[in-house]
Amino acid sequence: MSQTGSYNKRKIVNDPVYGFINIPSNLVFDVIEHPYFQRLRRIKQLGLTHLVYPGALHTRFHHSLGAMHLMQEAIAVLRDKNADISADEETGALTGILLHDIGHGPFSHALEHSLVQGTNHEDLSRLFMNCLNNHFNGALTTGIRIFNHDHRKKFLSQLISGQLDTDRLDYLTRDSFFTGVSEGVIGTQRIIKMLNMAGNELVAEYKGIYSVEKFLMARRLMYWQVYLHKTVIAAEMMLIHILKRAKQLVRSGNSLFATPPLNFFLKNEISLNDFQSVPETLELFAKLDDFDILTSIKVWTGHEDKILSYLCNSLIQRKLFRCELSTETIDYFHVERIKQKVRQAFGVEEEDTGFFVYAGSTSNYAYFPEEDEIKILMKNGRISDFAELSDNLDISVFSKKVTKHLLCYPKTIVSGG
Amino acid sequence: MSQTGSYNKRKIVNDPVYGFINIPSNLVFDVIEHPYFQRLRRIKQLGLTHLVYPGALHTRFHHSLGAMHLMQEAIAVLRDKNADISADEETGALTGILLHDIGHGPFSHALEHSLVQGTNHEDLSRLFMNCLNNHFNGALTTGIRIFNHDHRKKFLSQLISGQLDTDRLDYLTRDSFFTGVSEGVIGTQRIIKMLNMAGNELVAEYKGIYSVEKFLMARRLMYWQVYLHKTVIAAEMMLIHILKRAKQLVRSGNSLFATPPLNFFLKNEISLNDFQSVPETLELFAKLDDFDILTSIKVWTGHEDKILSYLCNSLIQRKLFRCELSTETIDYFHVERIKQKVRQAFGVEEEDTGFFVYAGSTSNYAYFPEEDEIKILMKNGRISDFAELSDNLDISVFSKKVTKHLLCYPKTIVSGG
Amino acid sequence: MSQTGSYNKRKIVNDPVYGFINIPSNLVFDVIEHPYFQRLRRIKQLGLTHLVYPGALHTRFHHSLGAMHLMQEAIAVLRDKNADISADEETGALTGILLHDIGHGPFSHALEHSLVQGTNHEDLSRLFMNCLNNHFNGALTTGIRIFNHDHRKKFLSQLISGQLDTDRLDYLTRDSFFTGVSEGVIGTQRIIKMLNMAGNELVAEYKGIYSVEKFLMARRLMYWQVYLHKTVIAAEMMLIHILKRAKQLVRSGNSLFATPPLNFFLKNEISLNDFQSVPETLELFAKLDDFDILTSIKVWTGHEDKILSYLCNSLIQRKLFRCELSTETIDYFHVERIKQKVRQAFGVEEEDTGFFVYAGSTSNYAYFPEEDEIKILMKNGRISDFAELSDNLDISVFSKKVTKHLLCYPKTIVSGG
Amino acid sequence: MSQTGSYNKRKIVNDPVYGFINIPSNLVFDVIEHPYFQRLRRIKQLGLTHLVYPGALHTRFHHSLGAMHLMQEAIAVLRDKNADISADEETGALTGILLHDIGHGPFSHALEHSLVQGTNHEDLSRLFMNCLNNHFNGALTTGIRIFNHDHRKKFLSQLISGQLDTDRLDYLTRDSFFTGVSEGVIGTQRIIKMLNMAGNELVAEYKGIYSVEKFLMARRLMYWQVYLHKTVIAAEMMLIHILKRAKQLVRSGNSLFATPPLNFFLKNEISLNDFQSVPETLELFAKLDDFDILTSIKVWTGHEDKILSYLCNSLIQRKLFRCELSTETIDYFHVERIKQKVRQAFGVEEEDTGFFVYAGSTSNYAYFPEEDEIKILMKNGRISDFAELSDNLDISVFSKKVTKHLLCYPKTIVSGG
Repeated sequence: MSQTGSYNKRKIVNDPVYGFINIPSNLVFDVIEHPYFQRLRRIKQLGLTHLVYPGALHTRFHHSLGAMHLMQEAIAVLRDKNADISADEETGALTGILLHDIGHGPFSHALEHSLVQGTNHEDLSRLFMNCLNNHFNGALTTGIRIFNHDHRKKFLSQLISGQLDTDRLDYLTRDSFFTGVSEGVIGTQRIIKMLNMAGNELVAEYKGIYSVEKFLMARRLMYWQVYLHKTVIAAEMMLIHILKRAKQLVRSGNSLFATPPLNFFLKNEISLNDFQSVPETLELFAKLDDFDILTSIKVWTGHEDKILSYLCNSLIQRKLFRCELSTETIDYFHVERIKQKVRQAFGVEEEDTGFFVYAGSTSNYAYFPEEDEIKILMKNGRISDFAELSDNLDISVFSKKVTKHLLCYPKTIVSGG
Repeated sequence: MSQTGSYNKRKIVNDPVYGFINIPSNLVFDVIEHPYFQRLRRIKQLGLTHLVYPGALHTRFHHSLGAMHLMQEAIAVLRDKNADISADEETGALTGILLHDIGHGPFSHALEHSLVQGTNHEDLSRLFMNCLNNHFNGALTTGIRIFNHDHRKKFLSQLISGQLDTDRLDYLTRDSFFTGVSEGVIGTQRIIKMLNMAGNELVAEYKGIYSVEKFLMARRLMYWQVYLHKTVIAAEMMLIHILKRAKQLVRSGNSLFATPPLNFFLKNEISLNDFQSVPETLELFAKLDDFDILTSIKVWTGHEDKILSYLCNSLIQRKLFRCELSTETIDYFHVERIKQKVRQAFGVEEEDTGFFVYAGSTSNYAYFPEEDEIKILMKNGRISDFAELSDNLDISVFSKKVTKHLLCYPKTIVSGG
Repeated sequence: MSQTGSYNKRKIVNDPVYGFINIPSNLVFDVIEHPYFQRLRRIKQLGLTHLVYPGALHTRFHHSLGAMHLMQEAIAVLRDKNADISADEETGALTGILLHDIGHGPFSHALEHSLVQGTNHEDLSRLFMNCLNNHFNGALTTGIRIFNHDHRKKFLSQLISGQLDTDRLDYLTRDSFFTGVSEGVIGTQRIIKMLNMAGNELVAEYKGIYSVEKFLMARRLMYWQVYLHKTVIAAEMMLIHILKRAKQLVRSGNSLFATPPLNFFLKNEISLNDFQSVPETLELFAKLDDFDILTSIKVWTGHEDKILSYLCNSLIQRKLFRCELSTETIDYFHVERIKQKVRQAFGVEEEDTGFFVYAGSTSNYAYFPEEDEIKILMKNGRISDFAELSDNLDISVFSKKVTKHLLCYPKTIVSGG
Repeated sequence: MSQTGSYNKRKIVNDPVYGFINIPSNLVFDVIEHPYFQRLRRIKQLGLTHLVYPGALHTRFHHSLGAMHLMQEAIAVLRDKNADISADEETGALTGILLHDIGHGPFSHALEHSLVQGTNHEDLSRLFMNCLNNHFNGALTTGIRIFNHDHRKKFLSQLISGQLDTDRLDYLTRDSFFTGVSEGVIGTQRIIKMLNMAGNELVAEYKGIYSVEKFLMARRLMYWQVYLHKTVIAAEMMLIHILKRAKQLVRSGNSLFATPPLNFFLKNEISLNDFQSVPETLELFAKLDDFDILTSIKVWTGHEDKILSYLCNSLIQRKLFRCELSTETIDYFHVERIKQKVRQAFGVEEEDTGFFVYAGSTSNYAYFPEEDEIKILMKNGRISDFAELSDNLDISVFSKKVTKHLLCYPKTIVSGG
């Protein structure tokens, strides 16, 4: 229909972080308009972090647009340096990054440890993408190939997921902006200007190494200051256990207020296989967002199950558990003492203590899975590893896996004594 | 308990707008901790505006903290200029501003035009404040008096509501920040530095008049660019009509998914009198927030009532109505033609056309009710009206009431022809 | 030489205002490298304004680069809207804006009222451009034509000088940034995004009218808050009279420390004609910058002429004159009383009183010479005048010429009584 | 005179970095007004750095005000944490930090390696302070004691010079702001909020360790990106050799244009002893600023001495030398080859080659003289060393002395071959 063709889809979106984000093509516009993508408007990027940093309410929708904006800039920079990027590849890179988080559910970490235990968001992203590709008659094929690191021009894939990808560049910038943690600010613009190619690989130019160093530092800082903030961990652990309890109750026949999609996932143990074989599963998952979870929890504050209502009230009224965080394992007897106190204070059975006392480690929030190296383009044209170059700074800091041990329990329990 | 006394409630909150917000006293801390105040975390300051400006997800919680922060600054400035402000009055001004929006429900405008038609948020704020004052054994009495303009030192009340109050200063700054509409940035810091007193009245010093001018301009701009953005109005009108339809359905005996508090307000017509005489009413209202509304609407997208599900789907999938905005009244025959097309396209009865076509005016979003003047302290000590002073700029612009007429209807209806 | 060709002149310059400024071509790079352009590094954009706003030390060099940066952005926006702009025209627009201020001497206003009275910077800019065009073998011809509004595509000339030119957009943004007067911040990025063409004319799109309004307001505010700040005027008037006195002394045979170019202009009365006919004149003028003037004044603080040394000491030690500013003419007898007191206090002759008491008006700092209208592109494709459109705001404020009367004299003179 | 007493010296200064800077007392105001302090308006904080970062024109005047502003904030934070700081000590800390750089001459590094070889700015600062203390009748005594680390409350001295002093906090923030190197941005506000005392010592609270880490990283980055930028080093080396040549010429009887104070220091070899015993020496030094140096160099571009005029022209026209920077010593034969080419190209004698080829190392720009540790206040009240704490990051990076070897020579000399 000719009218559709002339309809102006080249919109500009206001963004407090970059000023403006351009919607560069009709396809990008249509992808954004799709309900699967619109639902990201209702999924906060940082889950419950806003309970500590009240500004951190930004969504995966906004992050995805932001990452696409940086992709546009990166492509312009690389083309300026004579990269051969076709129009199809450009669209591919843009739709690829736009959809990189499409498989996220609400409070992803929590969900993957409670509601949909057998699946992860990367798998779901692929399912969503294929589904959308059908809808758009194959227009997303190149984008999916680039997303899957299945395209000849590796640097395009690395711009979606790699050491200096536009995903990380945007989320660090955006999370730092909305939390107000100014120490996390990275020189996004400068890093992008320093990108270049060597063969098919994405590299950073030598004069940008201090920016790269700063980027790694900022990332590390954001982990400790924001992503692994112990009060945030406490809130997330509470959410996980609320959902676990709700599942337990539903499956043992109790009646529980829940939206239809939440009800479905509470009732049924869903595997990745179910997602793949029963199309309705994905459709139901696509209806699930922060609102289903939070609203149900609000209603559960009045539930007759004491454990459920206690946890829900504590979360909703922000009476968050204390969280002890340590580089060493938590003393066994300390944990046992806390558990005992909890059983006394709350009159719970031994088997339910686990809903009040969470001992574990944050290795699940793994932090620097350094799959590939950051490559630096030297002035003489040679390529070096960043780690070897930055001779002054012991870069191994950034690649070391850090495990922190944690113990969470109600603040009303006095730990010492 | 002595331990409570020593417990440190002097917290610092990260704020992307001002950097940090200090919690200056135990009372302020305890008010913030109260569930009534915590619920403001789940009520967005700008309702559905984020559908146009995706960053505008900030809450009334954050705004209230921000306004309190500016109140701290204003008090420091005035004391520096020898204002006599006692510790009790300081606490009063801080708690007063903190609670100035406590009566807001979710999507306030929409609610006041649908769910709780007989009441407004100012009345509810007073009810909440009295309730909290009981809880805090009268510690909020001075704050309530200042809020009610019932305290001898008028300038303190004017800092809560007046031409240059900390409420407006914060919301203009904050809304401008999170929408990314940089034109709305006002010189908050400078305006506060220019505050002074004349007798009991709050005034601005002469050298600040251009900042005041800019403040009025920015406010005007924010109205047209953000608060009365026609797509935002369209979304809000859709929300109003969704709630109206839901009410209609519930009251005529249909079953509708809803959280308990929403269910209550859908079923019963509640007057201010009910709020005052039945304490449970306020308690139920305090449980209602953005999540109840949005979650229910999400579920209603699958409802069998075609009108309800059409409107809900349109809102959730962001297929927002077209909104024609005009300074002149909309032509009667134009409206009729649109209505007729709607009846044909959707097969609805005449009586239900109003759920698809909204004609009205934004006088209800009235814009500059200039109750009191901005007073300027001249260098010679005299006081002048700002309007008379700013001889170069025709200030009447800012006080004129502007009525805009609007017509909203589904985009699938072609208007011309 | 092929090596030169491969030499990379595509530099990036750090700019605190925009982040980065790109040098887009070899010609632009070479123009910037030329000593005539490099001298702008030593001429502050805002003359003596830093005596009031200590951050305002930015130079005409930086402003010219900034305006060129905005020109790049404007061209990209217009091309996106299908403007036909050839590579030659692009280079022309870029070099044209780069050189638009090349004729400025140090403390332009002061100089044009003292040292080089018969000439103005626009004339000198043209002389410099022609001179550079010879040097670059005619490569600047298109740029000069565009600068002179002598090119078919009028909108390019309007981007250099017009109601929404990149000159103003940059200087308002930059001056506001470096003075720290946040009220002067304009939505540069948004205004540029709203630019379009109608025929050959530059227009702004309708949805940008509030940004245009804000731009005009900010400009007005910057005039009163910065450009016509009375302490800045006082300093500038003192500078004018220092140079007048120095001229008087030199021409009556006194010896005065001065750099060779300053000495030349102190000794000789130079007309525009001299600039045109004697090439060495322009060459000497090109050697004159802030450093010659200020350094000489510093040395003159020790000169035996009491008037000269008094004025120089007052300026260098920042004992700036009081400046009375008024919308009405200053009372004759008031001025006479001040003059008499000065004569007594300083023991000066009647004929020299004018070096201590400056009465006049700021009509010379004329402010809104609205040669052409701001044209707005309506949604229906029609063009309207901004002044007619902005129905709510009496736009005549912005076009009214405002004359302020001023009286400056030493602060040690008590005005009252 | 009573009128003076009532004169309002509580000014507010606009600052693009912090918004506003308050002048908190009459004494502070009077110190700022003194010609010795006003002269800092004419000494750029970063010397010739603006040749690379054109925004870096900010002065030592502005930096000193900024550091004083941070001192006000730090004192407020410490008092909030129950620090005992008397009014006299507050004034002392404020005047101490205000004057900490008062002894700097123009282009300090260059000067200390050419004009005033035997002295350094710390010694001169003390001389200036004593001189001012006489002028202000001893009002600066406490400030001087605090500055000299000669006051009982060590933390006050540490706020002036120590690992987390307000000097560094301001200059890193300010230099980063004006250069536009956003990577250098540190969380100044947060670090100040984290300051506390332990006994008499200044410490940072544990929750601020990532901010401290970031601060150290930013500092390191600013060194490599800005302070030791090789083009800046080249320019500074050129300046040193210009002044050396000028001295040589003057002392061998040549006539040279120079302002009186510059002439004095060119002619005479001045030792610290001279400064102490002959008061006029300091007075003359106080008249020397960026303007004397630059203006003279501009005039010397036309001098008949080929070496002097070549270097001056190169600096003024920004034809800066190439600078090779290396962590290894520069190869002897490479240097010799360059020297030989220079002798051929410029026809200079062996003894004068040193004016064209500078080989050396930047150990003189030494970088982290970690005299004292950063102490961290743990949650349990214990004090730890930052270096031991930050277990993840090898902090030794920051304390290692880095020596870089450099070789500068005219760009027209082709190095390879």
